[in-house]
Amino acid sequence: MNKDNKKYKIAIDVMGGDFAPLNEIKGAIRAYNNKPENIDLQIFLVGKKDLIEKQLKELGNPEFAYEIVHADEVITMKDDPTDALKNKKNSSLYMGVDLVKEGKADAFVSAGNTGAVLATSTVLLGRIEGVSRPTIGSFFPGVQKSVFVLDVGANSDCKPNFLYDFAVMGSIYLKKILGIDNPKVGLLSIGEEESKGNSLVIETHQLLKKSNLNFAGNIEGRDILISDCDIVVCDGFVGNIILKFAESILTLLKAKFKDYADKSLVNKLKIGVSLPTVKNVLSDFDYQNYGGVPLLGINGVIIIGHGKSSDLAIQNMILKAVESVEKEVNKEILIAIKNNS
Amino acid sequence: MNKDNKKYKIAIDVMGGDFAPLNEIKGAIRAYNNKPENIDLQIFLVGKKDLIEKQLKELGNPEFAYEIVHADEVITMKDDPTDALKNKKNSSLYMGVDLVKEGKADAFVSAGNTGAVLATSTVLLGRIEGVSRPTIGSFFPGVQKSVFVLDVGANSDCKPNFLYDFAVMGSIYLKKILGIDNPKVGLLSIGEEESKGNSLVIETHQLLKKSNLNFAGNIEGRDILISDCDIVVCDGFVGNIILKFAESILTLLKAKFKDYADKSLVNKLKIGVSLPTVKNVLSDFDYQNYGGVPLLGINGVIIIGHGKSSDLAIQNMILKAVESVEKEVNKEILIAIKNNS
Repeated sequence: MNKDNKKYKIAIDVMGGDFAPLNEIKGAIRAYNNKPENIDLQIFLVGKKDLIEKQLKELGNPEFAYEIVHADEVITMKDDPTDALKNKKNSSLYMGVDLVKEGKADAFVSAGNTGAVLATSTVLLGRIEGVSRPTIGSFFPGVQKSVFVLDVGANSDCKPNFLYDFAVMGSIYLKKILGIDNPKVGLLSIGEEESKGNSLVIETHQLLKKSNLNFAGNIEGRDILISDCDIVVCDGFVGNIILKFAESILTLLKAKFKDYADKSLVNKLKIGVSLPTVKNVLSDFDYQNYGGVPLLGINGVIIIGHGKSSDLAIQNMILKAVESVEKEVNKEILIAIKNNS
Repeated sequence: MNKDNKKYKIAIDVMGGDFAPLNEIKGAIRAYNNKPENIDLQIFLVGKKDLIEKQLKELGNPEFAYEIVHADEVITMKDDPTDALKNKKNSSLYMGVDLVKEGKADAFVSAGNTGAVLATSTVLLGRIEGVSRPTIGSFFPGVQKSVFVLDVGANSDCKPNFLYDFAVMGSIYLKKILGIDNPKVGLLSIGEEESKGNSLVIETHQLLKKSNLNFAGNIEGRDILISDCDIVVCDGFVGNIILKFAESILTLLKAKFKDYADKSLVNKLKIGVSLPTVKNVLSDFDYQNYGGVPLLGINGVIIIGHGKSSDLAIQNMILKAVESVEKEVNKEILIAIKNNS
């Protein structure tokens, strides 16, 4: 430990993902071992103490800077976010967010129930001043580059200023964390002209046009994966439907491939070759590959991951949390929202 | 010609598609030759007379029951629908719809500018009594069956009763034209519970629930291609974005395949095998394969097709138009909307 090092304390929801607590604990250890040299990392393992200790033992009790924070309850994927927030205050999710609220942790990381993380964080930590609504984005694999689509489900009914704030926050995140200078923002619509779209989009277009963002205008559904935009802004209803639709294409192809393969042996061989390639490409829609995504607009650093997160994904989420704290993403959002409004 | 035969007069927009007038004329001839035995078919070829005559000559002046209706102007894909309606009254599109209005044709078929067909038909022919908004659907290739998604772009801002009418009209079309008894209707949302979605969907859910349709509840983006629903109802903004997004997946896969192929000769061979299969499956998103889709809710039979429609697609559009007239789809819609309201 170097005394000049900055120290970051990250809380992880050990009970969160589909493979909890194993992947969460392995991911925490990996993050600790792979952290940048110039920082110190302290990890709060939030969850059932006996389970965590048992798991650590099975992993040979590796040495790393951690502290177990016992949480008696677990919020499952099936729990209603609002009910969970009200009735499961001893859950790992609630207690993890609370560690951030109390200033004991710098950030919280969870591969658990996204809706519950959103609801709990919004209530316990509040929004960054001036932000209309917090948002969740997701990275889509584009032809030219990864595309950060937001919102993908946090807000199903939106107003123009919500979409505007999503664009501002997304731009800052890509700039600070991915190092993209002046990220290009597209507004999802059903025609390129500024008069095209639903009333939400038509009004949002005007807000974005006079902002100091790098606004590329409207883009259509067919452009999401193909345009040179870094960010695509849409309401959370549309964003969530596209994200889930995209994930289902692989299922469609698999089924169609099977029909085709059943027709002849040659076809079968062809498919045996094709399927892994297609899988490979389409699995990029799964956001765990990006090591989670931030909950933007919340007064605190929260990184959420896919339920199926691997230990590598968990590691990346933790390191992304560290980076978000270090680079003061939230402070930048506060300033940008103030300057733009 | 059998004197007991019913006679149908179908107008076709010869200038409409990307391969006009060739595909349109070849399609008309195919439709004539492949029509059911118990009907007589008369085709109005609406467009530039000299071009049509030249094309017919090049095709060897085949014999079939047609009449050329000269139209001096052409509405292109780039024309604004409202401007076109106002300023291009001598276009093949306008004159074709007008033939239906005048009772000279039973139906109109176009692979031209969809927005212009919609605007012109709505203004010239009006809506079926009781219908809130006309709608355009599209067939998506599902794992179990084809899925009729509507609306896919005719209405970008919707109210609950619009979506309700889409469900009623879609159900009748599938029943009468595809012979699907009691088609299953899903409502596109971002959660299965009836409380999930945006306010439009939450209200629509209640309308559909108490209707006499075969309502299966909410379905999510991932279910569109996978559920056992025959119909998926959504607003035209969402529907259009998904449709175009789906069409772009092939472009993404091609690009990713290329990257992969460039890495080694073996990869190149693998891709050579994979791509045609993937293409085959994903091209099903292209609605020309279904021989066009109806403009539902209009006081008249209008079938629209993809700009890239082949002559086979044009043939199918004409035969579908005949069937829609014969089976009195619009009369059924009138009755159903009255009964349900």
